[in-house]
Amino acid sequence: MPDSTALMTDHYELTMLRAALHSGTAQRRSVFELFGRRLPEGRRYGVVAGVGRALDLLERFVFDGPTLDFLQERGVVDDATLDYLSGYRFSGDIWGYAEGEIYFPYSPLVVVESTFAEAVLLETLLLSVLNHDCAVASAASRMTWVAGGRPCVEMGTRRTHEEAALAAARAAYVCGFSATSNLEAGRRFGLPTMGTSAHSFTLLHDTERDAFTAQVESLGVDTTLLVDTYDIAEAVAAGVEITGGQLGAVRLDSGDLGTLAHEVRRQLDRLGARETRIVVTSDLDEYAIAALAAAPVDGYGVGTSLVTGSGHPTSSLVYKLVAREGDDGELVSVAKKSQDKVSVGGRKFALRRLDDSGVAEAEVIGIGHPTAGDRNDRQLLQPLVRAGTITGRESLDLARERHVRAREELPLLARSLTKGDPVIPTVHD
Amino acid sequence: MPDSTALMTDHYELTMLRAALHSGTAQRRSVFELFGRRLPEGRRYGVVAGVGRALDLLERFVFDGPTLDFLQERGVVDDATLDYLSGYRFSGDIWGYAEGEIYFPYSPLVVVESTFAEAVLLETLLLSVLNHDCAVASAASRMTWVAGGRPCVEMGTRRTHEEAALAAARAAYVCGFSATSNLEAGRRFGLPTMGTSAHSFTLLHDTERDAFTAQVESLGVDTTLLVDTYDIAEAVAAGVEITGGQLGAVRLDSGDLGTLAHEVRRQLDRLGARETRIVVTSDLDEYAIAALAAAPVDGYGVGTSLVTGSGHPTSSLVYKLVAREGDDGELVSVAKKSQDKVSVGGRKFALRRLDDSGVAEAEVIGIGHPTAGDRNDRQLLQPLVRAGTITGRESLDLARERHVRAREELPLLARSLTKGDPVIPTVHD
Repeated sequence: MPDSTALMTDHYELTMLRAALHSGTAQRRSVFELFGRRLPEGRRYGVVAGVGRALDLLERFVFDGPTLDFLQERGVVDDATLDYLSGYRFSGDIWGYAEGEIYFPYSPLVVVESTFAEAVLLETLLLSVLNHDCAVASAASRMTWVAGGRPCVEMGTRRTHEEAALAAARAAYVCGFSATSNLEAGRRFGLPTMGTSAHSFTLLHDTERDAFTAQVESLGVDTTLLVDTYDIAEAVAAGVEITGGQLGAVRLDSGDLGTLAHEVRRQLDRLGARETRIVVTSDLDEYAIAALAAAPVDGYGVGTSLVTGSGHPTSSLVYKLVAREGDDGELVSVAKKSQDKVSVGGRKFALRRLDDSGVAEAEVIGIGHPTAGDRNDRQLLQPLVRAGTITGRESLDLARERHVRAREELPLLARSLTKGDPVIPTVHD
Repeated sequence: MPDSTALMTDHYELTMLRAALHSGTAQRRSVFELFGRRLPEGRRYGVVAGVGRALDLLERFVFDGPTLDFLQERGVVDDATLDYLSGYRFSGDIWGYAEGEIYFPYSPLVVVESTFAEAVLLETLLLSVLNHDCAVASAASRMTWVAGGRPCVEMGTRRTHEEAALAAARAAYVCGFSATSNLEAGRRFGLPTMGTSAHSFTLLHDTERDAFTAQVESLGVDTTLLVDTYDIAEAVAAGVEITGGQLGAVRLDSGDLGTLAHEVRRQLDRLGARETRIVVTSDLDEYAIAALAAAPVDGYGVGTSLVTGSGHPTSSLVYKLVAREGDDGELVSVAKKSQDKVSVGGRKFALRRLDDSGVAEAEVIGIGHPTAGDRNDRQLLQPLVRAGTITGRESLDLARERHVRAREELPLLARSLTKGDPVIPTVHD
């Protein structure tokens, strides 16, 4: 990956810049807004993730020599544009919903205010990061919520692009996953990593007992043995025996997990291995996790459905010019086809309106400053970039704590997996 | 991104290695196979993509100092394993279906033969690349097929992770897309890139006419004007007038595209702009493209549904140990729970069996060498890595040509978008 992220951009952003430089409109002050017109069908809320990644990528959004050479060779832009790009650094302001925050239709997740030239180039990169990471986070949040106190581990790397996997692990952590299987995510984002063995390890050995013995000797009795390669009851018995009853956990990766968990729990208890945990994997999603709530399961490993957003691998977020400077220097609202309330100009405010008991009741969006209102209103837009300087960095653990708080503020219906409308309405003030 | 790709790996691969080094089984010669048990529901065929990317990532799969430090600090492995990893280079053989090839259930897309230690570490990385890239390619192929001779342009970057977007653009090109909007994909993979303007460019200007004039002056009359910001008929008229009838193309990005295309074609012809093309975008997928076959459309831009695999963002490919050395040094077939024909040991062959007219009639898979058979059989497994040396690199254009040939070999039913079984059966010889 080149250090510069400037070409993670659609061709048309550069040609628009070229034409705007030509027409003298490139320097018009502009406000772009990143938002979604709807949540994925039936979802009650969405979750913001990727903010920190977007800021890191923005910092590297510069047109270095090789990048300019490429644009020149391909004839994407002319000399005047190359000249402009060689000095490009985003110098405007960016506000946004903080990582881990909840969002709803028309929530202004990101607001970019700068010249047209500076802001138009960020469209694709910001959308890529947010569309992907919010999709994973929105699915992850439902999973950890229905899992209750039971830990969820992210195991989906193999089901998605190798770099998307890292972002997915990160988004899952923000939404309460306790660990990831992905080692690079552990290194890059400081996440806890976990894993012990696959079926291939058992099959490599002459007998299952040989494999278990090797694993326990090497990784300790607190390891997790995968017990469904051959006969589960035999494997559980062998695991308990080899560890002298101290086995950390068993993993079930196939079959009817609820029934099997009950059977294995009974067997473990009978053998005196009351502390041995049962973790389950195998195509879990939020619905399967919810269905296992009454089963004696101690943890979930989630792969495919997490990294693919549980049926919604992208978030339908768009990046639209909502206002730009007119000839008189004032910001003018602009919108495709017809003016409507949701695309009015100027920098917006966004509030989560809470009732007296602290439960969210509306997403309130408007222009300028909010009318003096309810003291329970919570401001949602945070400064992320001020005059080109990134100010919005924070630890993932802060985002993780924010997510729990924001989720707990929602009406209880938000936790429902049945399809329905967003759990609170979006109100344009 | 670190140069080393070695941590794009699930934690458990390292712990398995650690335990196998401990038990003395790590050096057992092993055969792993990467395959899918099924195609996405209702699909007639799948398309192989990502082979070249996998080889590039494999070349960087080395445990450098920082990588070893991380594994040591986290306590993932012990000293003996660190010692092994410090000298790790894959030194075995890899065969695989070539990029652009068609595949079916149980097609052995990749076969890895080496020690267990060397091969087990590649599980996650190979699966990530193939699961993602094949999903995009399999969708892309359906789109270009139903588009017939009309060019398709990949425009989905904003809907997926910023790095996944590059792989998606590459896979789409293999499957016949003519260009991508993604500039980095243009640089990294040498793909043609395209794009002109978005609604924000029109909205930036005081009038649509100002915007069109600026674009035409800057980019030439052969540019593509986006005509649905306000009134389409007025925009088309203005575009033709400004270009003296020489306008390259108009783009429609909303509304009922079929109806609008007919109306705009009639208007363009009436204005004498018979050479002006009409390109359409806006949530297209293979079904929408097929529905527009009779409309006067000259090209398609496809985004979301392409990069998310048109409903199937991952490919359900798995990586399984199918054989390993026994005490006598011979390869022993291994399989979870029960032996079955599809997991028999040893290196497989795979053939596309063609009838006398050259139409594919079966995917034939077996062990060892194929029985002397039909001269129309086509060998599918190509050497990709020999004794650790990468031999399978090729240009994307070769893969693109291969894809067209392989697709044309299929029974015509393969082009159908109705749900059904794979278009040819998989036969175990």
